[in-house]
Amino acid sequence: MRYEELTIEGRNAVLEAFRSGKTIDKLFVLDGCQDGPVRTIIREAKKQGTILQFVSKERLNQLSETGHHQGVIAYAAAYEYADVEDILKRAEEKKEAPFLFILDGIEDPHNLGAIIRTANLAGAHGVIIPKRRAVGLTATVAKASAGALNYTPVAKVTNIGTVIDELKEKGMWFVCADMGGESMYQLNLTGSIGLVIGNEGEGVSRLVKEKCDMIASIPMKGDIDSLNASVACGVLAYEIVRQRIVKG
Amino acid sequence: MRYEELTIEGRNAVLEAFRSGKTIDKLFVLDGCQDGPVRTIIREAKKQGTILQFVSKERLNQLSETGHHQGVIAYAAAYEYADVEDILKRAEEKKEAPFLFILDGIEDPHNLGAIIRTANLAGAHGVIIPKRRAVGLTATVAKASAGALNYTPVAKVTNIGTVIDELKEKGMWFVCADMGGESMYQLNLTGSIGLVIGNEGEGVSRLVKEKCDMIASIPMKGDIDSLNASVACGVLAYEIVRQRIVKG
Repeated sequence: MRYEELTIEGRNAVLEAFRSGKTIDKLFVLDGCQDGPVRTIIREAKKQGTILQFVSKERLNQLSETGHHQGVIAYAAAYEYADVEDILKRAEEKKEAPFLFILDGIEDPHNLGAIIRTANLAGAHGVIIPKRRAVGLTATVAKASAGALNYTPVAKVTNIGTVIDELKEKGMWFVCADMGGESMYQLNLTGSIGLVIGNEGEGVSRLVKEKCDMIASIPMKGDIDSLNASVACGVLAYEIVRQRIVKG
Repeated sequence: MRYEELTIEGRNAVLEAFRSGKTIDKLFVLDGCQDGPVRTIIREAKKQGTILQFVSKERLNQLSETGHHQGVIAYAAAYEYADVEDILKRAEEKKEAPFLFILDGIEDPHNLGAIIRTANLAGAHGVIIPKRRAVGLTATVAKASAGALNYTPVAKVTNIGTVIDELKEKGMWFVCADMGGESMYQLNLTGSIGLVIGNEGEGVSRLVKEKCDMIASIPMKGDIDSLNASVACGVLAYEIVRQRIVKG
């Protein structure tokens, strides 16, 4: 999947982007390039936990939009990320039980955008996405979110599982969408809840699934396997909304 | 929106496509072109109710993939369309109350694909789309439907409003998704039902909305206006599924 993020090329531009506090989703460095400026950039990248990839000159030329990359290309997020704490604070300010979406590897920017849109309208306080193997807040995502990215915070974390553990200690429950679970209509989905949605092809990863308190299935009558990920997320999110209304 | 359908170019190829019974979504003819073969093609197009558009040479050259269009280019559907009758027959065979999706102008092929996927899994018997101002069954739609197009029939009709009138005479009810309606949780959505989903930007058109028996709103707590069309369709379809389960 081609990231349609802001591409920053050249040593000064990339270093400046890091130093200005811009969120860099990914840094590509020419393999074997070890001089001072490049080492400084790599140090900044490591400090900020940026995904770092050493690539061949051919690959770098291919990624380059200007043709003047000087051995480094960075992909900057089109939007700024929030912290998980910011998201929890939002719930607290609204005096509501936290309601989060945790996306375990959504790759399609249209899906991520549609999901952020759903989060906004279903009253979720924020969305958590992983650093690796997932699309970030690109321009396409922003467009597909239809403005929701301006309101609904998205946090990017190194390890989804660790975050779930931490939030469980704070009293949150986690439900993941998967076939072979209990029907979502049978489960109690009220209270402080995190809705976990898996990757488009693979679903929720085993490690993340094991951490979830409940596995919810959407009743399916058809011939194919699964709903589109953003549709499944919408259907489950609104079952949570319905249960909150009924209970409230 | 660029149709990613099978493009058929040249007089013999286009005429052959019509005569073989292939579904042609749209025919482009060079403006002012009036010779015998072209008139024969136009006659076939009119017989089959194909959307016909006269365009300039520049436009035709732009649309051409081969550069040899000879004044005619046809877009063929990647999949075959069903009739509304086929869809009703399917419900009858399954001894179920008909459950249809009526799409009033979905333009994005990813949305159409995701909606056909939802139709399949929510147990809808088919999907009805309009001929004009909407995406047809293109290759992109087929891909986004994740195989559902092989199972769930899609009918293409000239006038959505007329079809709704005909189906109402057969005892069907129609609910459309729109802001300012009643909460979907308050409505009785059981029985023979057609779920009407509007265009991504414009929503349901006025004429179609007036024909609907109910206007259902999805509760929204957020800052933006609306859900993604395929997500909204999924949320409403599953409220229908839930009510059918509770009642059944």
